[in-house]
Amino acid sequence: MKLGDGVEAAIHCVTALATLDEGRVLPAAAMAEFHGLSTSYLLKHLKALTKAGILASVPGPTGGYKLAKAPEDLTLLDVVLAVEGPEPAFRCKEIRRKGPNPLPDDAFPKPCGINAAMLKAEQAYRKALRETLISDLIHNHNQTSDPRVHARGCAFVQQHIRP
Amino acid sequence: MKLGDGVEAAIHCVTALATLDEGRVLPAAAMAEFHGLSTSYLLKHLKALTKAGILASVPGPTGGYKLAKAPEDLTLLDVVLAVEGPEPAFRCKEIRRKGPNPLPDDAFPKPCGINAAMLKAEQAYRKALRETLISDLIHNHNQTSDPRVHARGCAFVQQHIRP
Repeated sequence: MKLGDGVEAAIHCVTALATLDEGRVLPAAAMAEFHGLSTSYLLKHLKALTKAGILASVPGPTGGYKLAKAPEDLTLLDVVLAVEGPEPAFRCKEIRRKGPNPLPDDAFPKPCGINAAMLKAEQAYRKALRETLISDLIHNHNQTSDPRVHARGCAFVQQHIRP
Repeated sequence: MKLGDGVEAAIHCVTALATLDEGRVLPAAAMAEFHGLSTSYLLKHLKALTKAGILASVPGPTGGYKLAKAPEDLTLLDVVLAVEGPEPAFRCKEIRRKGPNPLPDDAFPKPCGINAAMLKAEQAYRKALRETLISDLIHNHNQTSDPRVHARGCAFVQQHIRP
């Protein structure tokens, strides 16, 4: 099981944008530079976050991205699903119905128990992601991170913030 | 997030092998045929299950695969990790350290909070998988599946069982 690398980039961008004052934006190129990523790569994920209603984009030469919701109203699950899509990790291909001597569909009135067990575990995963707010991550970061990390982030944001 | 298709095949094979009497085996080709899969594809996953100590292989013309442990001693997590590997779904690339004006390593004494939150959710996922025994899946299947499904499976196993 593997999440795409875009999830790490997306969560870092969302937490960075949560530090901006009302109405301010950061351009995609600045967020890409700050995280050592290519702008085209990051744009793909910023667009997915925008489509999901997590970010809002402001067009034009002084444009960029900002949060579309308060960090208290965004969860880790929102960000993961925006980047990875809504499908569960386990995708049942109904191999129980394949092979020789096939049975009619009415022999399978219930979902496969293996699929049900895998989806139950995924519900536990999603519940844990849903219980982590973006505001929690920011609070913990502010409480525990080294002052140099905080200063570096603030300086970079101040240099690139718009308008 | 996506699990490989091999997980579904592996769980179905493990539950099928759990129905065999002591000392009996099923060849890989028979399990592949029963699930509509290619033998070479399935062999890759059967070998991973064997390497993980979940299956045992008996070589030779009357050989095949059997469980290496009782179904009560095997969990869904054992099977998923055998096929997918032990790495977590979220693989932190420490992008917090990238970009301009890098800081020395001692500025990051703690694991990234984003990584920690993602791993905590994965622990919930693994806990749910660990709590589902292979014997539970078989019990539920026997209790709820259509008699035709049961009869088809038994007939196929009887036709291919060894020695």
